[in-house]
Amino acid sequence: YDSEGGDLTSAGRLEGKLREKTLTLDTLNPQVKAVEYAVRGPIVIKAGEIERYLEEGGTKPFSEVIKANIGDAHAMGQQPITFLRQVVALCTFPELMDSPSFPEDAKWRARRILQGCGGHSLGSYSASPGVECIRKDIAAYIEQRDEGVPSDWENIYLTTGASDGIMTILRLLVSGKDSSRTGVMIPIPQYPLYSAAISEMDAVQVNYYLDEDNCWALDINELYRAYQAAKLHCQPRVICIINPGNPTGQVQSKKCIEEVLHFAYEENLFVMSDEVYQDNVYTPDCQFHSFKKVLYEMGPEYFNSVELASFHSTSKGYTGECGFRGGYMEVINMDPEVKAQMVKLLSVRLCPPLAGQAAMDVIVNPPQPDEHSYKQFRQEKSSVLGALADKAKLTEQILNAVPGIKCNPVQGAMYAFPRIFIPPKAVEEAKALGMQPDMFYCLRLLEETGICVVPGSGFGQKDGTYHFRMTILPSIEKLKVLLGKVRDFHIRFLKEYSALE
Amino acid sequence: YDSEGGDLTSAGRLEGKLREKTLTLDTLNPQVKAVEYAVRGPIVIKAGEIERYLEEGGTKPFSEVIKANIGDAHAMGQQPITFLRQVVALCTFPELMDSPSFPEDAKWRARRILQGCGGHSLGSYSASPGVECIRKDIAAYIEQRDEGVPSDWENIYLTTGASDGIMTILRLLVSGKDSSRTGVMIPIPQYPLYSAAISEMDAVQVNYYLDEDNCWALDINELYRAYQAAKLHCQPRVICIINPGNPTGQVQSKKCIEEVLHFAYEENLFVMSDEVYQDNVYTPDCQFHSFKKVLYEMGPEYFNSVELASFHSTSKGYTGECGFRGGYMEVINMDPEVKAQMVKLLSVRLCPPLAGQAAMDVIVNPPQPDEHSYKQFRQEKSSVLGALADKAKLTEQILNAVPGIKCNPVQGAMYAFPRIFIPPKAVEEAKALGMQPDMFYCLRLLEETGICVVPGSGFGQKDGTYHFRMTILPSIEKLKVLLGKVRDFHIRFLKEYSALE
Repeated sequence: YDSEGGDLTSAGRLEGKLREKTLTLDTLNPQVKAVEYAVRGPIVIKAGEIERYLEEGGTKPFSEVIKANIGDAHAMGQQPITFLRQVVALCTFPELMDSPSFPEDAKWRARRILQGCGGHSLGSYSASPGVECIRKDIAAYIEQRDEGVPSDWENIYLTTGASDGIMTILRLLVSGKDSSRTGVMIPIPQYPLYSAAISEMDAVQVNYYLDEDNCWALDINELYRAYQAAKLHCQPRVICIINPGNPTGQVQSKKCIEEVLHFAYEENLFVMSDEVYQDNVYTPDCQFHSFKKVLYEMGPEYFNSVELASFHSTSKGYTGECGFRGGYMEVINMDPEVKAQMVKLLSVRLCPPLAGQAAMDVIVNPPQPDEHSYKQFRQEKSSVLGALADKAKLTEQILNAVPGIKCNPVQGAMYAFPRIFIPPKAVEEAKALGMQPDMFYCLRLLEETGICVVPGSGFGQKDGTYHFRMTILPSIEKLKVLLGKVRDFHIRFLKEYSALE
Repeated sequence: YDSEGGDLTSAGRLEGKLREKTLTLDTLNPQVKAVEYAVRGPIVIKAGEIERYLEEGGTKPFSEVIKANIGDAHAMGQQPITFLRQVVALCTFPELMDSPSFPEDAKWRARRILQGCGGHSLGSYSASPGVECIRKDIAAYIEQRDEGVPSDWENIYLTTGASDGIMTILRLLVSGKDSSRTGVMIPIPQYPLYSAAISEMDAVQVNYYLDEDNCWALDINELYRAYQAAKLHCQPRVICIINPGNPTGQVQSKKCIEEVLHFAYEENLFVMSDEVYQDNVYTPDCQFHSFKKVLYEMGPEYFNSVELASFHSTSKGYTGECGFRGGYMEVINMDPEVKAQMVKLLSVRLCPPLAGQAAMDVIVNPPQPDEHSYKQFRQEKSSVLGALADKAKLTEQILNAVPGIKCNPVQGAMYAFPRIFIPPKAVEEAKALGMQPDMFYCLRLLEETGICVVPGSGFGQKDGTYHFRMTILPSIEKLKVLLGKVRDFHIRFLKEYSALE
């Protein structure tokens, strides 16, 4: 108020009556204050400042900021899948149905989607769980993916990106009134949407640690340890799994998934499986297994009882369509009365964006071998996934050649999460600045090279260990340059602070 | 569980160990249970059931269900604005930039939007507050709308429809911990997003009643009454206004807005002005005044101090693009530290859908008189708004000619909210069924005519009065049929129940 009201000469001001703001840091919802989201946190704000500084003619030891902080494929130059965009453009502007430059297989998909929309327009609200024919396409896709495991389209809910679905399910489980008692089990390291949602809803975060020495595998004994420890001060009701892992890039084995599901069955936990990277598996000895399929194979006493929500998105995979905010969740074994309550909750926000729903439909219903667009689609898809596999390998190799950096294989997803050695003197200096040592490291990296990565502390890590998350999304040429700069920086950094010992 | 586990013969089942569901109505977050959202509530679910019944060959006294429950223009046959869809299609599939069938004025807008997107793609995340050039266009639009009142683009936040913005601001104000003490003043009748959000966040709903006898005007004395009464049991911190009114259709006078703002200034309230119907004003003696402009004209002691968020949307106006989930809010006088916290909160959900942001850009930056697309744009826009004005008038006239129905003028927005007389015997019968009398009425209307409207009880109303909300969106021919059916039904209903007296 002071700065804005400095030149006031009004009656109120003359009377010395300073109107206070209603909403200040003191009166702000404390749960909002508690939220942290490193992927767009302080380091990214700093990167934006440097970008503007460069644009305005400022100079730095580099000419551009490379944002390797977020899984934003198109921003890194990945091209959209032509067929997907054709279908969405046709839905948006149906006069294009008459254009000979759009293929028939795209047109019939667009027509079908529009027939499912009110007034045959992408401008209508859909039903809150999404357009019916898209829900049916998703169910058919899941059945095919899971080699015949049944999927009921009425269990499918379109969402505004996967984040929205994850928040919705957590909202059902976490009560404001006794929320300090609801435990939500999450992996550490985790994608910070989870910790942010837990803070916002005032639930209890229950950490289970992934095993860095074992390729970030999930160890069932650690799950039991975390659960038992948590039970002393809260009621753990839900376990979240991210597979393939974000930020850790591991792909879970079938055996491990079985163990998690058995644990959830025994301890009566709701299972949330974040499977948005299901198409991003790179190492030949790894395979994506959906939690649902594994649950099915465990037999009906499991498949008919464990409450499971799994999440998917248009933002990842080979499409990388983040801006469309498309996604879905499949929810099985949910109590029908709870389901009705969930639909009511979804209906308050009306519906997910229709363009995102259409994009999701193309992903689950891509061109088939006998269709005109198949060849180009297959070529574009394998080109994206092939390049990602190459970049995953390259990143691991280059990072592991740097003394003081150790990187697990990037089996899947879009990130490397290397462990970095930070010399004690640098740790000291960071702490003197009131900063996490890896934040200090990443800020230095940004200032000196223009490379923006996210400190491991934003995802969680074992005490005394330090990491950063970087995406493998830049083009292979750019990625090589980036990794070279990281290497040179790291060596310089080690030298500088080891000399101080 | 029982129904699903009926055929289990597993060890667990044989041992008699019945695994309970984690999430049941008993363990569900009670705040979710408390949420009500009539616009997509029980009556709409019933309408969907009847629709399916008809599709499957069932017979009713009517051949189709007319959904007049929700402001979903395209679903009611309204055609999209060509220019808007051209721009969004160009953004979606930039190869169309080479197509001669798209006008240059649409192409340069699309190019400009794409230049603001990462990798020049609608598939990238935007910054969490939205694409910078779109925020700038919105600020320029507001300045023009408000005849020169300054608007800072950094105060503009793109949202996923207006609902998302409203929830975000409320989330800042309502703390989970002491939320039972935060009062949120809302008009009665209100749009039930507000009451739903208040329930979900466990705040205190503070009702101020609009004056039905005075065209649903807001009476400042009633505001003071509501405030004083609320202060006895909570701390009112925010006042919500819907102008033009939903469901009530009134357009607030400048004097009334001044009074509200003075009241907010005096009592230190945050002001949320829901102005999504700002382009929907039909009666010549009414004019839309933005809260911000009125605040400005009250002088700097007000303009530099009252915290105000105003909301707009792509879903209403003359575009009716609900499915795009576009919208924005302008937030003035917010404490800079709080603003930083809000951006952090927004960043967890990454960004609003890019197609919706693009659609919003077209609305604030439409074709100008010297541009190729202007003529068609102006014609389409005035055709939609002209028809809405005709339908507003027609609805009021036909309803007021029915004995036992009294409808205030539909000055703006998209709804009529007539008061209906329900005979005591019908009230009795409804209560015996455990139903609100106007719900009973609306269900009968639906069952007998196929017309789906929303009971007044879903919006709030003075005790002992009954209403329903219907949209004026059907085509004029359909609307006439619809209103005729409502009239005939109402007369039949009165006769039936008056005969029982």
